[in-house]
Amino acid sequence: MSAYDDLMAFQRETEALGQVMGRLGWDQETVMPPGAAEQRAEEMAALDGVLHRRRTDPRIGDWLEQADTSDPVAARQVQKIRHRYERTQRVPEALSAALARTTSLAHRVWAEARATNDFALFAPKLTEVLDLSREKAAALADGGNLYDALADDYEPGATEAELETMFSALRPRLVALRERVMGSERAVPKLSGAFAEEGQLQLSSELAGAFGYDLNSGRIDKAVHPFSSGSGLDVRITTRTALEDPFNCFYSTIHEVGHARYEQAIDRDYLLTPLGRGVSMGVHESQSRIYENQLGRSRAFTGWLFDRMRSTFGDFGISDPDTFYAVVNRCAPGYIRTEADEVHYNLHVLLRFDLERDLVAGRLDVPDLPDAWNDRFERDFGLKVDQPANGVLQDVHWSEALFGYFPTYTLGNVYAGCLNAALRNDVPDLDAELAKGNTAPATDWLREKVQRHGGLYEPKTVIEKATGAAPSEGPLLDYLDAKFSEIYGI
Amino acid sequence: MSAYDDLMAFQRETEALGQVMGRLGWDQETVMPPGAAEQRAEEMAALDGVLHRRRTDPRIGDWLEQADTSDPVAARQVQKIRHRYERTQRVPEALSAALARTTSLAHRVWAEARATNDFALFAPKLTEVLDLSREKAAALADGGNLYDALADDYEPGATEAELETMFSALRPRLVALRERVMGSERAVPKLSGAFAEEGQLQLSSELAGAFGYDLNSGRIDKAVHPFSSGSGLDVRITTRTALEDPFNCFYSTIHEVGHARYEQAIDRDYLLTPLGRGVSMGVHESQSRIYENQLGRSRAFTGWLFDRMRSTFGDFGISDPDTFYAVVNRCAPGYIRTEADEVHYNLHVLLRFDLERDLVAGRLDVPDLPDAWNDRFERDFGLKVDQPANGVLQDVHWSEALFGYFPTYTLGNVYAGCLNAALRNDVPDLDAELAKGNTAPATDWLREKVQRHGGLYEPKTVIEKATGAAPSEGPLLDYLDAKFSEIYGI
Repeated sequence: MSAYDDLMAFQRETEALGQVMGRLGWDQETVMPPGAAEQRAEEMAALDGVLHRRRTDPRIGDWLEQADTSDPVAARQVQKIRHRYERTQRVPEALSAALARTTSLAHRVWAEARATNDFALFAPKLTEVLDLSREKAAALADGGNLYDALADDYEPGATEAELETMFSALRPRLVALRERVMGSERAVPKLSGAFAEEGQLQLSSELAGAFGYDLNSGRIDKAVHPFSSGSGLDVRITTRTALEDPFNCFYSTIHEVGHARYEQAIDRDYLLTPLGRGVSMGVHESQSRIYENQLGRSRAFTGWLFDRMRSTFGDFGISDPDTFYAVVNRCAPGYIRTEADEVHYNLHVLLRFDLERDLVAGRLDVPDLPDAWNDRFERDFGLKVDQPANGVLQDVHWSEALFGYFPTYTLGNVYAGCLNAALRNDVPDLDAELAKGNTAPATDWLREKVQRHGGLYEPKTVIEKATGAAPSEGPLLDYLDAKFSEIYGI
Repeated sequence: MSAYDDLMAFQRETEALGQVMGRLGWDQETVMPPGAAEQRAEEMAALDGVLHRRRTDPRIGDWLEQADTSDPVAARQVQKIRHRYERTQRVPEALSAALARTTSLAHRVWAEARATNDFALFAPKLTEVLDLSREKAAALADGGNLYDALADDYEPGATEAELETMFSALRPRLVALRERVMGSERAVPKLSGAFAEEGQLQLSSELAGAFGYDLNSGRIDKAVHPFSSGSGLDVRITTRTALEDPFNCFYSTIHEVGHARYEQAIDRDYLLTPLGRGVSMGVHESQSRIYENQLGRSRAFTGWLFDRMRSTFGDFGISDPDTFYAVVNRCAPGYIRTEADEVHYNLHVLLRFDLERDLVAGRLDVPDLPDAWNDRFERDFGLKVDQPANGVLQDVHWSEALFGYFPTYTLGNVYAGCLNAALRNDVPDLDAELAKGNTAPATDWLREKVQRHGGLYEPKTVIEKATGAAPSEGPLLDYLDAKFSEIYGI
């Protein structure tokens, strides 16, 4: 065996164990008996220890030195393994362990603080998490930018400077669009009524199938928070139902199918290798968001969904597909990011991006965070935050030290905008097919242009190769402007 | 940390990873997408490699040398770890790997051979498995008895000689009882009709609850072959339904609850330690069989079940609890061990025990196995084997190198007989409670006397402590004689 073969055989086992870890997470959120939590924590900690020891195994360094990388795919595999290995090497083991311990505790404190609307309860733990994260960032950055060092885990190669440039172009136009929509005379009704769970789950499965989800390599279960989990031949999704809000079920299903199809569609040659997973959170989110929004919330597709909902639930008070389209896309300011419409969503993310940059840079202290949040929220949303649970305490991310993660949501939307423009250009009759519930022309295009490559190209390169242009915020803004100007007659 | 603490911390992680392995098996048999099999095999192989390396880690040897065992529980933990470690050390890694590879392949060949009724297809693979097993036995036995060396994995301390003594006392009386039952003039009808799956599953859950299964630390799913899986706080069972055979569903559920309750009831102090699992396959089977047979198929309990079945399914053609009791316990010779009644079951096991002893000792060659099987079967059951799938190919065990496993089934029945006699002595009004569907007096007694101890005592010691006498085949035979003499009027 060559050094490259040894490296890849070792890595393949590590990837397989990583999949096992993911499956434990899936199990915990879907089928685990409630009383098993304590034992499960030990099981996951034990497996995490195994994974950590493998990822820091010094043999990796030797193999990396000797590996033959004349083949370009081999070169990319090695590059990704090296990048991860070097990053892991740079963080002292004691710091890693302290972060794991502290975030585990902080997560619980955050949940309690959110439940009791008590930021002061969370503040000391968040300060600890932030301090450790800054320490980790300093170890990784080696004199460079702290935020870049953290964001690299989620969006390899992304920089604060580039994100800042893109996002500061985005924000004023989003705020302006938001204000125009809010000022519209046209009232879009809210969906009302009760929608039986059985019908929601049945139609949700049908939607998963319509978007190409492969149940031979996946399954759908219920969970409190929908998620997608796993890579390769076992990629599972979850959904949830709310009696009066079937869109929550349908669109979270389509969203998770976007994530899951990405993982399912990756070239089989990359199975259980570093290239066998989606390349970044941003590209991942581009798939989930284009499935959910540019396709799933399009006028054409909602026309089909309108019929399916009428067949499933009977008359539900909306009598024509045009009104239904508007209802699906109804805009309203709200406190909660995960419930936001397409116009408001990125404003939620940009707020978090700016605040966490300040936290990581040391320009903002944790005790001052709620005021900073509330001020910025009122500025961008025209709404006063009424309680911490609707503001600074709403998201789990910071309790888990996921600094640098938030921007990938908006990056995903930006990428989805770019992909949608190129897709519409390449497949001019797309709407005629979407109107029949046929997403294949779009999902085939995405599989071919983006998904099958897995981790072969850098995130930005994937988008550039798919669209023929470097990613930019323009297409997303144009899409949002056109869509919501029409819906709101502005 | 002392050497003992180090050893136990390491062992605890290994036990936790062993639980993860078990969960992957559960997942595979219940919820895994069909297309995930290939990837799952890699995941399990990777985790198996981790477990193997941990179990052979040389640090264990050092810790064992230095561990303080003045506390008796610590002494027992160390004894169990040492025993396992020394056994693992004795088997060369190449032989372990060859066995893993060969059994994996042999399992597939066996399934195909059974499906096509072609023993010749399986014979070469079985020969390979047997040769490797004998090699392993020789490495373990170090000049001692080969069969003992293999059986120790399933029934620590069991010896071929002791089993042979017990079983040769059992067999003639079982054969005699069988012949008396078969010669009875009294005809016991077979259950007939169709029993809706929903009712079967609902009543099966009720039965699980009635036998004390704790759903806070477990769950019930459907699987092709019912099994119980996991220890401690996460012990899951599966069941199956057959439209015309609800007893299959009900009694396999009760059987698996017996296994599961044993694991759930073990002293929490032993969680994720070598004492935190059932001590042997025989003791495990004693719990599943006493739940299933001595309790679940008792006249008292079937009276309650008769009412519950009538409430669930309406009139199903049996009008009184006495007939129902006989129907539940109906005896009929059959080819398949897993479908056998209480009178025939152990004769199936004894046949396998004798044949596999001959195989391991080299007194019987694989090509001669079918004839040996068929001759013995006809002698004990008065029935000619019609095809290999109903004979030598029916059980999976030998394809998986589980030589020495079969006797634990009958040992379990023998232990169940001993426990039942002692239980009936200690709890004289048991039947009055069973007749109300209340098993608590029995299951509490079993938890207290057997289950809570986990691996604290040697298998025979557990039974002796619970019953006040060394285990023997007498109580089982007396129980069977009395029960079936009455049912069949012989």
